[in-house]
Amino acid sequence: MNALPYDRAQLARKAQMIADAGRELAALGWTPATSSNFSMRLDPSHVAVTVSGRDKGKLGAEDIMVVDLDNQPVATTARPSAETALHTQIYRRFADVGAVLHTHSRAQSVASRLFAEAGAVRFEGWELQKAIAGHSTHESVLDLPVFPNTQDMSVLVGQIDAWLDAGKPLHGYLINGHGIYAWGVDMAEARRHLEAFEFLLNCELDLRRLSS
Amino acid sequence: MNALPYDRAQLARKAQMIADAGRELAALGWTPATSSNFSMRLDPSHVAVTVSGRDKGKLGAEDIMVVDLDNQPVATTARPSAETALHTQIYRRFADVGAVLHTHSRAQSVASRLFAEAGAVRFEGWELQKAIAGHSTHESVLDLPVFPNTQDMSVLVGQIDAWLDAGKPLHGYLINGHGIYAWGVDMAEARRHLEAFEFLLNCELDLRRLSS
Amino acid sequence: MNALPYDRAQLARKAQMIADAGRELAALGWTPATSSNFSMRLDPSHVAVTVSGRDKGKLGAEDIMVVDLDNQPVATTARPSAETALHTQIYRRFADVGAVLHTHSRAQSVASRLFAEAGAVRFEGWELQKAIAGHSTHESVLDLPVFPNTQDMSVLVGQIDAWLDAGKPLHGYLINGHGIYAWGVDMAEARRHLEAFEFLLNCELDLRRLSS
Amino acid sequence: MNALPYDRAQLARKAQMIADAGRELAALGWTPATSSNFSMRLDPSHVAVTVSGRDKGKLGAEDIMVVDLDNQPVATTARPSAETALHTQIYRRFADVGAVLHTHSRAQSVASRLFAEAGAVRFEGWELQKAIAGHSTHESVLDLPVFPNTQDMSVLVGQIDAWLDAGKPLHGYLINGHGIYAWGVDMAEARRHLEAFEFLLNCELDLRRLSS
Repeated sequence: MNALPYDRAQLARKAQMIADAGRELAALGWTPATSSNFSMRLDPSHVAVTVSGRDKGKLGAEDIMVVDLDNQPVATTARPSAETALHTQIYRRFADVGAVLHTHSRAQSVASRLFAEAGAVRFEGWELQKAIAGHSTHESVLDLPVFPNTQDMSVLVGQIDAWLDAGKPLHGYLINGHGIYAWGVDMAEARRHLEAFEFLLNCELDLRRLSS
Repeated sequence: MNALPYDRAQLARKAQMIADAGRELAALGWTPATSSNFSMRLDPSHVAVTVSGRDKGKLGAEDIMVVDLDNQPVATTARPSAETALHTQIYRRFADVGAVLHTHSRAQSVASRLFAEAGAVRFEGWELQKAIAGHSTHESVLDLPVFPNTQDMSVLVGQIDAWLDAGKPLHGYLINGHGIYAWGVDMAEARRHLEAFEFLLNCELDLRRLSS
Repeated sequence: MNALPYDRAQLARKAQMIADAGRELAALGWTPATSSNFSMRLDPSHVAVTVSGRDKGKLGAEDIMVVDLDNQPVATTARPSAETALHTQIYRRFADVGAVLHTHSRAQSVASRLFAEAGAVRFEGWELQKAIAGHSTHESVLDLPVFPNTQDMSVLVGQIDAWLDAGKPLHGYLINGHGIYAWGVDMAEARRHLEAFEFLLNCELDLRRLSS
Repeated sequence: MNALPYDRAQLARKAQMIADAGRELAALGWTPATSSNFSMRLDPSHVAVTVSGRDKGKLGAEDIMVVDLDNQPVATTARPSAETALHTQIYRRFADVGAVLHTHSRAQSVASRLFAEAGAVRFEGWELQKAIAGHSTHESVLDLPVFPNTQDMSVLVGQIDAWLDAGKPLHGYLINGHGIYAWGVDMAEARRHLEAFEFLLNCELDLRRLSS
């Protein structure tokens, strides 16, 4: 048995956390039709990520694979989703990020279409903005950018790199007609950020329905 | 005991898969008031299908019967739903289809009324269109036709035959004021298609509410 | 131990069916804040009914009492809800009714306000109208009347008697700002009717939102 | 072991009731992203309250702390949420209150924004107003005030004191962009009040959507 370049016990632990998150997020209806993908960092150069096309509510050990930060599968014949490139980008750009969650809720998909032209959803005056790390008051402004969708991941990666290179804050983003990416230092923070964005998006959509 | 014209173990396996799907779809509220029906192919000439009028969330072995591709009950005194004719039509027209699901969610029923005059719901720009077999990009166009409702199944069968005979693609359809039919090569694909259509219909209804 | 004027085993069976229905309807959110009440007929002159003010999701044997058809408690010191008079009216007027369900869902409450002036919600063109006993086609017309609310039960009873005495069909009714009453020959049919009305009310509200 | 200034068994009982309420309210989606906090009175001068920042759906004994009516932690190094001041205010002002619940549902947050300018949500004509202690008819008027949000708790406390000092009735209140506070003599009544307000807010928002 060859030595693995990552810690097997670490993988087992993180795979279980990913499966638990998947079960709970699927129960909320945020991963329809085998969409969505989840990952956690194993060490500075390896990431555990869901295999493409699996039911996210019923993930087992065989549904989680390891890639390096260049999206190359490590010690596996499994196929990573093309979107894995968006996960590894976040791990490369943010050294303290430990978990990345990509889901497809109805509010995420609908809001991405409605705010695509504006380029971002702007949240102001919501107490729950404080759930995003670094925000201590509802009086701040929180922007969730919306990037155009494309099947070419390198174009998406380029758009996000450009946003970050411009020095703009980024705690998550939408892709038009698609869904959200959110992350955190660990799974608990990534879940809190994802839940907060989902809640805020629903509130904004409700306000828009009710204010017209 | 007479020999059955189908494999009894195969029936037990498929009946269990139908009951599992029924329980999960009922929990989502897509089978109100004992509506909806589900089927799976047993062999080239037999289909397992739910008996009319049963609670789809609590299906047992006695709630699943066998029909041939002409809708005739096989080795049973149970009564098939009139809508069984729409299931067998799909098995006759698509040799590779293994499962057909008919549900009545609120979004399916409401969208069928709103898009009846247009004759179809057109999906464009949604990443989740990729969940439908054969679609590899959100840039494609996906049409879900809406057929007029009637209690005369032969009229409905004729409308669907006409659509298919015209060479138009068909991955599912709505019946006005009624619900959806979706299918796939196996239960997993049929579920994925059904979930994708339900999600896309909800998104379209939301966009319509929010864009007015 | 005095002889009871009803069958104790029958009461235990029906109380269990009421508790099961309560748990499932509460989980759907149709019995907010200890509202709603449920009953089943024990014999031609006795009815088992929920005691006032209990959490309908957690009913035990002590939360179900017996009344006669004049709303008088039988062999108990428990207090029946004032609304029990609406249950016994249905048992008096319809000799074949075995179960009455009164719930307070959001759609029931909101629709009752919107359609109060019209005096009824009219359903046309929905396949699910067939879930109501005696309806065999979506081409029929189904009216769900809305009666004005009052804390004086005798006034409500009088309005419903007047409707029935006029020979109009009645499968359920709304009370303005309040909720629904539905019934059936047994608990299964009462549940099917209640689910069908809830579904149809939601569809009508959706259509109204989307057609404006 | 030093003597504690409160009854340890009483704390264990109340902590369990808080954890049970948290699990059920979290399952309804009313405590997104570790928001919300809950408390119960232990004795005339002590209150058990949730520690800041915990997942309200998974509360354990270590997630509940004791404070006195001046918000000072008692026999613990845990940090109370700043919002604890709003809980102790209610216990100080209402000697018979035994439980206070603060949640962040979507309807609570959205309604708080829409009715902030009016200063209150007014409920009229809903049977469920009777779920609020002291209301015996749908013909009464029930006001749920909306106070401006601020990160300075003393300002919030001052606004609520002013409302009460003016002799106006108060059964709960919203904070703009934030959520609701509701209470009762025990956990059951606090839950009933919270459920009733949530239901009534949803109904008012639905009416507003449908009446435009």
